[in-house]
Amino acid sequence: MNELIDYIKSGMDISDEIEQKLSEIIVEKKVVKGEVILNENSIRKQHIFVASGCLRSFYKSKNGKEHTLQFAVKNWWIGDYTTIYTDQKSKVTIESLSHSKILMIDQTNIEKLYIEFPQFEAFQRKNFEKRIATLQNRILHLLTLTAAEKYTQFINDYAVFEKVIPNYQIASYLGITPESLSRIRKERATS
Amino acid sequence: MNELIDYIKSGMDISDEIEQKLSEIIVEKKVVKGEVILNENSIRKQHIFVASGCLRSFYKSKNGKEHTLQFAVKNWWIGDYTTIYTDQKSKVTIESLSHSKILMIDQTNIEKLYIEFPQFEAFQRKNFEKRIATLQNRILHLLTLTAAEKYTQFINDYAVFEKVIPNYQIASYLGITPESLSRIRKERATS
Repeated sequence: MNELIDYIKSGMDISDEIEQKLSEIIVEKKVVKGEVILNENSIRKQHIFVASGCLRSFYKSKNGKEHTLQFAVKNWWIGDYTTIYTDQKSKVTIESLSHSKILMIDQTNIEKLYIEFPQFEAFQRKNFEKRIATLQNRILHLLTLTAAEKYTQFINDYAVFEKVIPNYQIASYLGITPESLSRIRKERATS
Repeated sequence: MNELIDYIKSGMDISDEIEQKLSEIIVEKKVVKGEVILNENSIRKQHIFVASGCLRSFYKSKNGKEHTLQFAVKNWWIGDYTTIYTDQKSKVTIESLSHSKILMIDQTNIEKLYIEFPQFEAFQRKNFEKRIATLQNRILHLLTLTAAEKYTQFINDYAVFEKVIPNYQIASYLGITPESLSRIRKERATS
């Protein structure tokens, strides 16, 4: 679980006391390719930090089509924020796309940390600000970019993992058809 | 500026001291229909609270097409969160769609409040959690809903303002064409 503590240390000075508390509430897990970490309709309020590997959250529509909300690689957080922060059941499924090492913290335990260590709450408030900016950008990209521009953005964000993520999942993340993605890739390869 | 203080009071107990401080940093402004409050490429880190009326943030693409990021009605916040929380220039323009009363706070002043009053930071941390859940839902809706379902969702969220918002702006918020919106409306009217 050192990866998560190191990650937090890169953003704030933490006392031995917070470090001790963190190491008590972090749950480490190794998962294999295809393993499901969170099911849809779950009420588990769990933050998942990726220490290594690659995870994906996706929504399955009634007709069985999968829509990818997010990919998460090393040092990224992933979770169903509707479940974590409201009382609704999870809408997405979270699965591992490779052998991954994940570190999980329950929202209830994080809430206790906030009360005990206000400086940790300040640190999280700043993280949330960055996340809000990132989510705003994802919405703008979905609304405004062409399919080819969306793919270029994806390559920038997830370069090393492009090869492990199946085509249909990349297409569903970009909100385009797999056929459109194949065409864009061909055009990039020949240009 | 009482509307914003009342709004904050509905979510937390505030001391006379915080109330006094808030009243010093809130800037009240009345704006008319079509008035621009934030220009694109601005570096103003400003949170805008709607006391009355309706505002819109939108991105203008190179070909002049407008893409609506958000509408904000009474008791909603609006802003360019990329500019507010990172050092990038604003991507969106914010304009008023009606006569509106807005209350503005600079991010610099909010940062000072966090330092002075940790309970205000805790209140904001919770607000950010809700905003993250809302943004996650907006992304899922863009990716997964049909045009007709997106419109139904819009009616639920902005019912009273549907009539003051021009069709092309609603369509650009939903990520559909104005023609598609007209068709959906006709189908709803006759069903």
